[in-house]
Amino acid sequence: MKYVIIGGVAGGASAAARLKRVNEDAEIVLFEKGEYISYANCGLPYYIGNTIEDRKKLFLQTPVSFGNRYDADVRTLNEVTAINRERKTVTVKNLRNGKEYEEDYDILLLSPGAEPVKPPVPGIDLPNIFTLRNVADCDRIKIQAIDNLKENASAVVIGGGFIGLEMAENLSKTGYHVTVVEKADHVLTPLDWPMAAIVQQHLQDKGVRVITQNGLSAFQEKEGLLTVLLEDGTALPCNLAILSIGVRPNTALAKACGLEIGEAGGIKVNEYLQTSDECIFAVGDAIEFPNPLTGKSYCNFLAGPANLQARIAAMNMVYPQSVQYQGSVATAIAKIFDLTAASTGLSEAALHKLEMNFQTVITHPAPHATYYPGGQPIHLKLNFDPENGRILGAQAVGTQNVDKQIDVVSLLLKHQGTIFDLVNSEHAYAPPYGSAKSPVMFAGMVAENIFAHLMNPIQASELDGMLDHNEDFNLIDVREIQEYKTGSIQNAQNFPVDELREFLDDIPQDKKTIVFCEVGLRGYVASRILMQSGFENVYNLIGGMKTYRLVGRHNMKTNVE
Amino acid sequence: MKYVIIGGVAGGASAAARLKRVNEDAEIVLFEKGEYISYANCGLPYYIGNTIEDRKKLFLQTPVSFGNRYDADVRTLNEVTAINRERKTVTVKNLRNGKEYEEDYDILLLSPGAEPVKPPVPGIDLPNIFTLRNVADCDRIKIQAIDNLKENASAVVIGGGFIGLEMAENLSKTGYHVTVVEKADHVLTPLDWPMAAIVQQHLQDKGVRVITQNGLSAFQEKEGLLTVLLEDGTALPCNLAILSIGVRPNTALAKACGLEIGEAGGIKVNEYLQTSDECIFAVGDAIEFPNPLTGKSYCNFLAGPANLQARIAAMNMVYPQSVQYQGSVATAIAKIFDLTAASTGLSEAALHKLEMNFQTVITHPAPHATYYPGGQPIHLKLNFDPENGRILGAQAVGTQNVDKQIDVVSLLLKHQGTIFDLVNSEHAYAPPYGSAKSPVMFAGMVAENIFAHLMNPIQASELDGMLDHNEDFNLIDVREIQEYKTGSIQNAQNFPVDELREFLDDIPQDKKTIVFCEVGLRGYVASRILMQSGFENVYNLIGGMKTYRLVGRHNMKTNVE
Repeated sequence: MKYVIIGGVAGGASAAARLKRVNEDAEIVLFEKGEYISYANCGLPYYIGNTIEDRKKLFLQTPVSFGNRYDADVRTLNEVTAINRERKTVTVKNLRNGKEYEEDYDILLLSPGAEPVKPPVPGIDLPNIFTLRNVADCDRIKIQAIDNLKENASAVVIGGGFIGLEMAENLSKTGYHVTVVEKADHVLTPLDWPMAAIVQQHLQDKGVRVITQNGLSAFQEKEGLLTVLLEDGTALPCNLAILSIGVRPNTALAKACGLEIGEAGGIKVNEYLQTSDECIFAVGDAIEFPNPLTGKSYCNFLAGPANLQARIAAMNMVYPQSVQYQGSVATAIAKIFDLTAASTGLSEAALHKLEMNFQTVITHPAPHATYYPGGQPIHLKLNFDPENGRILGAQAVGTQNVDKQIDVVSLLLKHQGTIFDLVNSEHAYAPPYGSAKSPVMFAGMVAENIFAHLMNPIQASELDGMLDHNEDFNLIDVREIQEYKTGSIQNAQNFPVDELREFLDDIPQDKKTIVFCEVGLRGYVASRILMQSGFENVYNLIGGMKTYRLVGRHNMKTNVE
Repeated sequence: MKYVIIGGVAGGASAAARLKRVNEDAEIVLFEKGEYISYANCGLPYYIGNTIEDRKKLFLQTPVSFGNRYDADVRTLNEVTAINRERKTVTVKNLRNGKEYEEDYDILLLSPGAEPVKPPVPGIDLPNIFTLRNVADCDRIKIQAIDNLKENASAVVIGGGFIGLEMAENLSKTGYHVTVVEKADHVLTPLDWPMAAIVQQHLQDKGVRVITQNGLSAFQEKEGLLTVLLEDGTALPCNLAILSIGVRPNTALAKACGLEIGEAGGIKVNEYLQTSDECIFAVGDAIEFPNPLTGKSYCNFLAGPANLQARIAAMNMVYPQSVQYQGSVATAIAKIFDLTAASTGLSEAALHKLEMNFQTVITHPAPHATYYPGGQPIHLKLNFDPENGRILGAQAVGTQNVDKQIDVVSLLLKHQGTIFDLVNSEHAYAPPYGSAKSPVMFAGMVAENIFAHLMNPIQASELDGMLDHNEDFNLIDVREIQEYKTGSIQNAQNFPVDELREFLDDIPQDKKTIVFCEVGLRGYVASRILMQSGFENVYNLIGGMKTYRLVGRHNMKTNVE
């Protein structure tokens, strides 16, 4: 059986290796239009930022070593230009000599990846505008922009997604003054505002300027300096611009040969990763696949799923329809200076768009036992279905143990897990690693309290709406008086939780009552006291002052007693 | 409704807080025979080792603050001496004045914890022999042994479990020369030998002497110096001995009032955490509960499950039989100097004892992308059922990301997860946090290959047995020649995997063939080539040379070509 593979990075190379291990008799030809195969594209920002110093480390295999190990015919700098389904061949252009030839296949695998979106704005082809997708992009940036770095150089990163922010950090570390431009109302749109707010603050603390709600309109060159023009007219002169506004699946070959393309713009595949032609499989960034949480197809552009797909496709290419791919819940993470930001499943924004019913919990747990030194809070957001407790998504930002929380929720999401599963989860606990209740377990407990109507949640934005409209309600800060004095929410009265029972008569029962504390726990205790003492409409501010300080609009920095 | 709670640490205090939050009308009396409630007993070793400097940090709540917040009657230094089930009262001794009194209850919760095992050996009551279970123990050690530390002082820790090793580290950090004595054949018996071997080596590298297969026989005092005598006659003079050979559930009160005690020696409870008396609940270290993996009851002595049980029991004490406890799969972790060692589920030793069929995978993955700087390998062991792929347990040792691997497996164990679930798991990947295939996902893939008979595993101990008996078989080191020359297994021939296809005729097909590489991956590739080239009995050494160097007995340090 002769297998032809188009694309030699994560998906293609992994599939070739698995194919050969499963079937030593497989004849494998792997085409890669670039110079390299099986390289570390997720590592490229770190090579630019000198965290990875040795360029050789980016290459996990060479074409020769890979070819030897897997007895595969690896042809780099050979670009497949057409798929001829009726004759079961591909047309290939050898980029070394320009010659074209055909190669036949029994089974074909498409792993062409994705390409950076380059918007058709004026000046897009000026020098010093870069995308970062492959080794060639990386080398260009490294040589022109890093190795020849000028003093006081500045860079503009257009697009504040995971990779844009990784680039912002790495450019900043090499000495650039960095501005991040994001068209949405906050960076890292897989995360919702209360979480992204922490990331934006951190970027600013690290000297990165963040501009949101403002898109790219044009590039200009003035006196040898590149200028990024934004929609509102802002001009950002810079030595270097990184275009990181997204990628799109590479579907040109698939489209040209009439393979079905899905709604999300990716190559359509079935659960065996077969395209609409049963002899052609596809994996990686070029495909779309239903999200198990919504049933809707999407392109996830993630390395983990691409590698898994390659393994599954290879098996199905040898043993037809033997292994099913289960889809991805879009679990992603990035290091942003000292912070880690991660998400899995559906954000609040995505849930609104899908018109799905959900409830949200925000907590700020310590990453490990509070008495063990060194921990900064994790900021954690959990979205769930208040009807049945199904987990819908989670986001976390912090300095430690963020990845662990998201991995646990990610695993539950793949198993249609609930907040009750989180409550009953078991984790490895010792003081340096966690608390007796893990952060996600604790968030599950809060969610369970909401589910069981032990607590009514109110989000900071909802409270702000009420304050904007001067609604008449009790707003009670249940923290200690010293905490209250350092600043509270406008119009809040202070009744510390531990004394609240003595002051019940001082609070009108016939109004809506909103309580809050620093993170939400004392607010919960207070809301329980009030709810069981005749107060009918009691709400606890989700995330407490820690969240309100980040996103609230009626925050008083100092308080007058 | 009047609730009486016996024990004010993790289980008792958590239950009281939840009780009050659920039912503001609850009348709560909490008895604690010690001076403190709700303290950080998992943190005590770190206070001794000065990692936690401020003693106040050990106390999460004071009796007064807790009593105020939860409107509870907290009585420390009040010891319950009897439960009078027929009258529904407890007899209490006020340790402050020696007076006895009775207190009635509607519902009683037992959270008496566990007590350290003190074997009845000669000299057990000599000075400077300590156990560490509560604040009083901790203060004694801190004052007598740490604050008055002599030069060149030495300590013997008897018992090499998680807490024994935490104490070894912390005593060592304060300046003691530490010896750990363990009666079993290796320390950390929840882990099997190949994993524990790494821990033992690390302890020795850090200057801690480790003595195994040798139990305590007596204590003596000679010239003012304590001496620990072992079963084989070894005498270990020391300034301080820590008894850490285990704990047993505190069941005296429960036994005396006729509550049912289970096979494992703990208080027997049903899934609602009710004892054999429906008005008496019990939680924490004093109870036993079926392990979901085996159905057999055991005492787990873990803080996480105790806290969860408290939450569940409180709910059931208010709303009868409303929430079920699902049991614990025994997930545990400890920091041991620079290493983290963790386990979940069943060890190989436990599986042998239960006569359960299992297969084992050992891998040595990087904790994050290999090209990202700073990672030391994780050593990971996965036990699974080769009949159906059910995961049975996992163990991991390493410097980073160990906890995350074990948490993921722990969660799957609680959901009857399989190796296929591991393969299909999704995790948050970026180079600083992991690899496209996570360590446990990768171990799942290896297990799946064994399950699918793509690879036959052989363990280091099995290979050693064959070498011991001079069996006739092909033993092939498939690493590069430079690696082979640094040392290999006795009698191994070297055929590097990338050239193996050329030398197939040089290897006799009619014998069993065992291949190995450094960690197992190239061995797998080689075994696939051989298996598909007419070799019938091909085995790949699990864990490769990395495991064999730790536990193998036919290791040649240098090789002669």
